[in-house]
Amino acid sequence: MQIGILGSGVTAQTIGSRLVQLGHEVMLGSRDEANPPAVTWANDAGQHALYGTFMNAAAFGEIVFNCTLGSASLDALTQAGAENLQGKILIDTANPLDRSTDVWTLTICNTDSLGEQIQRAFPETKVVKTLNTVNARVMVYPQEVAGGDHHVFISADDPDAKAQVTELLRSFSWINIFDLGDLSTARGTEAYLLLWVRLYGSMNTSMINVKIMK
Amino acid sequence: MQIGILGSGVTAQTIGSRLVQLGHEVMLGSRDEANPPAVTWANDAGQHALYGTFMNAAAFGEIVFNCTLGSASLDALTQAGAENLQGKILIDTANPLDRSTDVWTLTICNTDSLGEQIQRAFPETKVVKTLNTVNARVMVYPQEVAGGDHHVFISADDPDAKAQVTELLRSFSWINIFDLGDLSTARGTEAYLLLWVRLYGSMNTSMINVKIMK
Repeated sequence: MQIGILGSGVTAQTIGSRLVQLGHEVMLGSRDEANPPAVTWANDAGQHALYGTFMNAAAFGEIVFNCTLGSASLDALTQAGAENLQGKILIDTANPLDRSTDVWTLTICNTDSLGEQIQRAFPETKVVKTLNTVNARVMVYPQEVAGGDHHVFISADDPDAKAQVTELLRSFSWINIFDLGDLSTARGTEAYLLLWVRLYGSMNTSMINVKIMK
Repeated sequence: MQIGILGSGVTAQTIGSRLVQLGHEVMLGSRDEANPPAVTWANDAGQHALYGTFMNAAAFGEIVFNCTLGSASLDALTQAGAENLQGKILIDTANPLDRSTDVWTLTICNTDSLGEQIQRAFPETKVVKTLNTVNARVMVYPQEVAGGDHHVFISADDPDAKAQVTELLRSFSWINIFDLGDLSTARGTEAYLLLWVRLYGSMNTSMINVKIMK
């Protein structure tokens, strides 16, 4: 499948490399067409790894990932263009974190979420919020934390989009995929980041996650 | 030990009964001295179960629990009186939930927490935030979820107070007690409630919790 990834940082590169490994064609999109990290990534990741602008990557992808910083996501998606995202699944992995202070806070929380803001801005795109509760490595190699014995959450308004993304998550080796419900449940997973940063602070590793117990 | 509990609802009664069972003397405190649920609880729970006003319960307790609704906590503590809480451990189990709408939200979050607000209002009391991430039953019978194979968090500025409360949690059968750090980490556990309410909504049971995996 052709997959576009908005972003060129660690999350974009890690997901991109995993998707190439799984046989997909992947284009990383950046503000500038020849963003150095994206160019380097594409050179290293083989012939199925491409780079371009946000618009190029959105147009290229049958499915599109948002791997930009939460603070930059709406701007990046606007540059990508609603017409290039229309009717497509957008997998939103971003969190609206303000990292400007020692203790990270959220710029959106409680009564709204970044996922919902994106959905409202791009009503003809099927936004699926997932993977935002774990670091980039755990997103695509979940077995590296506790042998995969932990949960990823998925939130979306469109059931078919949710089912397709669930299949993609399974291809990443996710075993426990928790369907939280509609996209408003992204408020829960984004707010969880306020706990995650404290766990990270206590444990001195970001190779962590939660398992839901009952 | 003599333990005061501010509140007379399910959380107060459940913790109170468990403490009596463990050999403590417990007084439930309410706005009115003879609050009917507290009177009924005291009559049912035996000779070591007492009731009174917020002030009575705070004065009675060597340790005090806050089991009021988050929206009512500061008012209840003010009625209890700073002089009755001075130098004591206050175990804050409350969450600043607004339950007036279908989807619960927080009245304090992200850059502050109820636990910290209480600490600032009562600087001579040792506030320990814990148990707020699980329902009343799980608070004191953790083995009823997954045999106890899950985590409770503890946040406090005073290490000795944290150590004493950790011992009390062990007496409730908590095995996995996660020391998150200072009281500001209560922002994380209170914000987690936004995920908890969605898990509760999906799972149709509140006998749930998370286990931290690495």
